[in-house]
Amino acid sequence: MLFHVRMDVKLPPDMPADVAEPLKAKEKARFQELQRSGTWRHIWRIAGQYANVSIFDVDSPTQLHEYLMSLPLFPYMQIEVMPLCRHPSSLHNDDR
Amino acid sequence: MLFHVRMDVKLPPDMPADVAEPLKAKEKARFQELQRSGTWRHIWRIAGQYANVSIFDVDSPTQLHEYLMSLPLFPYMQIEVMPLCRHPSSLHNDDR
Amino acid sequence: MLFHVRMDVKLPPDMPADVAEPLKAKEKARFQELQRSGTWRHIWRIAGQYANVSIFDVDSPTQLHEYLMSLPLFPYMQIEVMPLCRHPSSLHNDDR
Amino acid sequence: MLFHVRMDVKLPPDMPADVAEPLKAKEKARFQELQRSGTWRHIWRIAGQYANVSIFDVDSPTQLHEYLMSLPLFPYMQIEVMPLCRHPSSLHNDDR
Amino acid sequence: MLFHVRMDVKLPPDMPADVAEPLKAKEKARFQELQRSGTWRHIWRIAGQYANVSIFDVDSPTQLHEYLMSLPLFPYMQIEVMPLCRHPSSLHNDDR
Amino acid sequence: MLFHVRMDVKLPPDMPADVAEPLKAKEKARFQELQRSGTWRHIWRIAGQYANVSIFDVDSPTQLHEYLMSLPLFPYMQIEVMPLCRHPSSLHNDDR
Amino acid sequence: MLFHVRMDVKLPPDMPADVAEPLKAKEKARFQELQRSGTWRHIWRIAGQYANVSIFDVDSPTQLHEYLMSLPLFPYMQIEVMPLCRHPSSLHNDDR
Amino acid sequence: MLFHVRMDVKLPPDMPADVAEPLKAKEKARFQELQRSGTWRHIWRIAGQYANVSIFDVDSPTQLHEYLMSLPLFPYMQIEVMPLCRHPSSLHNDDR
Amino acid sequence: MLFHVRMDVKLPPDMPADVAEPLKAKEKARFQELQRSGTWRHIWRIAGQYANVSIFDVDSPTQLHEYLMSLPLFPYMQIEVMPLCRHPSSLHNDDR
Amino acid sequence: MLFHVRMDVKLPPDMPADVAEPLKAKEKARFQELQRSGTWRHIWRIAGQYANVSIFDVDSPTQLHEYLMSLPLFPYMQIEVMPLCRHPSSLHNDDR
Repeated sequence: MLFHVRMDVKLPPDMPADVAEPLKAKEKARFQELQRSGTWRHIWRIAGQYANVSIFDVDSPTQLHEYLMSLPLFPYMQIEVMPLCRHPSSLHNDDR
Repeated sequence: MLFHVRMDVKLPPDMPADVAEPLKAKEKARFQELQRSGTWRHIWRIAGQYANVSIFDVDSPTQLHEYLMSLPLFPYMQIEVMPLCRHPSSLHNDDR
Repeated sequence: MLFHVRMDVKLPPDMPADVAEPLKAKEKARFQELQRSGTWRHIWRIAGQYANVSIFDVDSPTQLHEYLMSLPLFPYMQIEVMPLCRHPSSLHNDDR
Repeated sequence: MLFHVRMDVKLPPDMPADVAEPLKAKEKARFQELQRSGTWRHIWRIAGQYANVSIFDVDSPTQLHEYLMSLPLFPYMQIEVMPLCRHPSSLHNDDR
Repeated sequence: MLFHVRMDVKLPPDMPADVAEPLKAKEKARFQELQRSGTWRHIWRIAGQYANVSIFDVDSPTQLHEYLMSLPLFPYMQIEVMPLCRHPSSLHNDDR
Repeated sequence: MLFHVRMDVKLPPDMPADVAEPLKAKEKARFQELQRSGTWRHIWRIAGQYANVSIFDVDSPTQLHEYLMSLPLFPYMQIEVMPLCRHPSSLHNDDR
Repeated sequence: MLFHVRMDVKLPPDMPADVAEPLKAKEKARFQELQRSGTWRHIWRIAGQYANVSIFDVDSPTQLHEYLMSLPLFPYMQIEVMPLCRHPSSLHNDDR
Repeated sequence: MLFHVRMDVKLPPDMPADVAEPLKAKEKARFQELQRSGTWRHIWRIAGQYANVSIFDVDSPTQLHEYLMSLPLFPYMQIEVMPLCRHPSSLHNDDR
Repeated sequence: MLFHVRMDVKLPPDMPADVAEPLKAKEKARFQELQRSGTWRHIWRIAGQYANVSIFDVDSPTQLHEYLMSLPLFPYMQIEVMPLCRHPSSLHNDDR
Repeated sequence: MLFHVRMDVKLPPDMPADVAEPLKAKEKARFQELQRSGTWRHIWRIAGQYANVSIFDVDSPTQLHEYLMSLPLFPYMQIEVMPLCRHPSSLHNDDR
């Protein structure tokens, strides 16, 4: 099932690069792992923000929660979740 | 280019069915026309709301505005628009 | 899976009793049908509000959406949905 | 009587694990103590948030306040309380 | 137990006086009845608003809800409820 | 004249006990002094919050301001003030 | 004593001129009466809004409330009140 | 001097075309008159909204207020005004 | 021309007195300088807040900005500005 | 295409001048570079705020994002973006 997730990342502006960079590298690795598994179906940057809008395809809210908790940047994120449904008028098969 | 659009539809609860139904039918027709043309790339219902989250792929903000204004339900909608960018870490070609 | 749903009912104060009463009776019937089926697991009134907090146990966001849309008072409700997970520390089996 | 309590936990992201872990362990112990006593009737995680929704069954607002103040994570929580009533249409005995 | 209740009254400005006046008279009668019974412990007007702040002393949230629902102006009110506790430092016996 | 004051106390969670405790003790002493003088007519804890709702009976907004500024916890408080009036329908003499 | 009052006027756009004009004329007359008496010390329009910021000099919140209730446009206004104090550093005698 | 003005137009969805069209035509005429006079320096549509962002160059807040009040759609608009200053680092002469 | 300015001062509660006091003394000196020059026409404390409401009489938004930036407490203030106009019904010459 | 961007700068009040000044100098240099290239079409200070309103003319949301991310003050800014369209009634060629 699908969930719409908005993530706003709030890193302290004075976080040293040698702390921030490994954190971001681990985030990217975990993100691509979830993307490859088909769970993290879409991601887009919001222009002008250190933030993204994502679409997750998971088995349950619990699975979604575990995936989000597993993100290395989770402690620095503000997250909003909205459950989605396929739109009855949609002609696209992949808007499931 | 991509835009994230949230549309909340506020039809008056006492709108007679013979006004509401043709309006919704015209909305569906126009929506599918834009979907077939590739402009309206994604649409999802927000669970529990008369509302959707959509991704548009258009040439400019002006084109987006014209498409939204052309929707028969536009006068009854509250609309929020966010410009999106491809995420640099994404592995998916279609998250352009 | 579980969803937390808050429903605020906004009936126009001048709705005639012979319109409001049948509507509320149908709402109650549909509500009890869903309660009997095990879908609408909990409901509580919020003190001082024409509003409730409910816990739904459904198969998907789509099923939740259909149940909420089927409520006779849906056009008069403002609804907020939050996906829930079992809490890992809970000792209660029914907080699934 | 029943109260709906939402707790959002805001631990500083740089709190050392040897401070955070004992704090969370004490929180869990106190939570389960209240759960066993029947006071903390329900708890659910909110998906994607370090937050929960809970239902307390207490003798008075004062008792609720004392229980919440006794939580080791209280100084790091943002808490919202709503008094609840049994819904007159409910068929479930335990929605008291 | 004590509850803090704020009531904002929103009568339509074009409600005819022969509808508004009897409604207000019934409201006043019901209010004084609850005041005499000791339930509606305090009431104050908020300066510049058609609104009041009240303190109720009731047996339960359910009783509070029933009293508020029994007010003739209830359909025109926006109501906020906060449960209160006796303050541990208070020297006044009647701040119970 | 009467003022409704809500005070939310925001002590930093890592304030050492040997700083916080004397501060709270001074706050309590000053509070009881104002309570004994009849100025601080009512105080109630808001359940689940480190916050109170109070009713002050003072000669002027300036006197209210001076009393609030004299509280040892003032620098850590977020304060909201609303001027109150006696309600014309009240039967209670002490709701002046 | 002084109060800061912001008044936003919300006349329905379709109110006929022969209803609106007499209402506004009565408002102006009552306003100038209070201005002449020294009660309504200052008034300014907020640029671009059908709204004003005013300073009242009254004996009590109750007197302020009565004056505001006596305004013919009161039922169409949204009003916010803040109690003011003389600023201790002010050199102006009339900022009392 | 410059002011940033955002105007959101809220025409009732059921306003008949023979009322709305002449109103919009008059709005356009007045708008172009102010644009030609150099007062209304810039205007842009906000994509997806019946709203615009404008820059006015006027002699005073009072003149701005009079121009805005003279717009035929003023009663249907929600307006926000912010005073602007030339930015000290700007290289453009016309960002005055 | 007139501007309505609200200033909320947010000094860190743990700022040492030997930093805060000279800062406040400089603020007072600069404030009285502007008051003497006729620019800072009115100032009032908001009861219960470390905040004021002020009326400035300046030549332009740019001059207002420069005066506000020159305040020693500016980095600790949250400021809101509203342009004002003389009210057409006012009988007072000094409400210009 | 055009975007409306509001930037609020939140430098910590205790940032030492030898950190803040070079940062601001780099910001100014990068800003003027973008201004010279025609990308940063307009900029205005918001009176009383450490904030600006800007109009960008870019090829895509992605280009806008890259330009904003390249600003030395980006980590200290809160940014809001709105896509704009040429207004159909505008007589000015440069409101494109």
